[in-house]
Amino acid sequence: MQTITTLEVRESILNNNDELAKGNRESLRGDNIFLVNIMGSPGAGKTTLLKRTIEGLRDEYRIGVIEADVDSAVDAESVAESGAKVIQLHTGGLCHLDAKMAGEGLEKLISEAGEEKPEVIFIENIGNLVCPAEFDIGAALQVMLLSVPEGDDKPLKYPLMFEVSDCLLVSKLDAAEVFDFDLNALKERVGQLNPGMEIIPLSALKGDGTEEWIDYLKARIEEWKAG
Amino acid sequence: MQTITTLEVRESILNNNDELAKGNRESLRGDNIFLVNIMGSPGAGKTTLLKRTIEGLRDEYRIGVIEADVDSAVDAESVAESGAKVIQLHTGGLCHLDAKMAGEGLEKLISEAGEEKPEVIFIENIGNLVCPAEFDIGAALQVMLLSVPEGDDKPLKYPLMFEVSDCLLVSKLDAAEVFDFDLNALKERVGQLNPGMEIIPLSALKGDGTEEWIDYLKARIEEWKAG
Repeated sequence: MQTITTLEVRESILNNNDELAKGNRESLRGDNIFLVNIMGSPGAGKTTLLKRTIEGLRDEYRIGVIEADVDSAVDAESVAESGAKVIQLHTGGLCHLDAKMAGEGLEKLISEAGEEKPEVIFIENIGNLVCPAEFDIGAALQVMLLSVPEGDDKPLKYPLMFEVSDCLLVSKLDAAEVFDFDLNALKERVGQLNPGMEIIPLSALKGDGTEEWIDYLKARIEEWKAG
Repeated sequence: MQTITTLEVRESILNNNDELAKGNRESLRGDNIFLVNIMGSPGAGKTTLLKRTIEGLRDEYRIGVIEADVDSAVDAESVAESGAKVIQLHTGGLCHLDAKMAGEGLEKLISEAGEEKPEVIFIENIGNLVCPAEFDIGAALQVMLLSVPEGDDKPLKYPLMFEVSDCLLVSKLDAAEVFDFDLNALKERVGQLNPGMEIIPLSALKGDGTEEWIDYLKARIEEWKAG
């Protein structure tokens, strides 16, 4: 197993987050690296999704992963088993990444990779449906997970996350039988906030729906590279 | 159905949160009101638990509820059906309550209640496993929910919440059959962080375990009132 680099990052009071995010975006464009920001509640299934996604992409793209955590390195160790280059960011108790922290992580990941520069980088953001929505980090694609057990009413309660994301993955679909979850009601609520949002129900654990997600992601990567 | 009061609160940069929390605590002691702070991820089941808890307590205590939400009043409307006096706090996008916001909510709730002053007040904090842990609001009891679908590894990833809470309710126990959740592993991890923590597995939906929770809560209320 690879040794995992851990970086301690601390929030600076940023008035210029958007500017730094723009800087990240331009720098990634220059390096031809597609950045995906993965957001969702604690336990929504971000890490399982990420591992499944790496499996689906690694034959075509070199992949890098930045795991953001308040403290531990549990997810980084788990994702590293998939063979992707992984670094761990620690936010020191903070509830989100900002563009500065993300920029530090990207620089570290890219410089460590040397000649084997990643073509696609995933950032697994802190498990939180509120704060990460407020900070643009410079991603080309914003993906959020909402797991079935969380309930179909979440767009009403955490609207910003649904507004700032390009794609909603409805995860833990395999648990739908034991929860009273109305996918159509969810779609309607999402439609009020973000009519263009792509919605893909899936089970990252069992694999259902992951093919559709990976096809969607590849299409977005190629579109971006061409653009 | 009662009309729900909505209060818009905004975070002030507080260096003195602990002092304000102490003020809330003293003022509640003076009024002989037991305050419970309920925390947990989005969708952990806080509202369902709260409704079940009100049912179990309302014959013995006058109950008030403060629902904190980023934006909506979904939970407040749902909880109001239980007959408790409810007010809604809006944090305007923010991810937690601080002692000042909580104090504003308490004052409003208590003054609206007039002669029928509540004896027990529940605050349902913003759905978030990170930020609310950092802000003492002056509660006599800190309760956190962790739902089975979130996974047994959460103490490793969000340690502070487990450290600052007195009681852990392991919710959605009815879903245990479809999730690979190891209660003993969870207990061991919690033991490392907070050996005195009370851990009660339950299903607020089905009712399993809620009796134990309500007995525990009543014992804590009486202990506090005597103390």
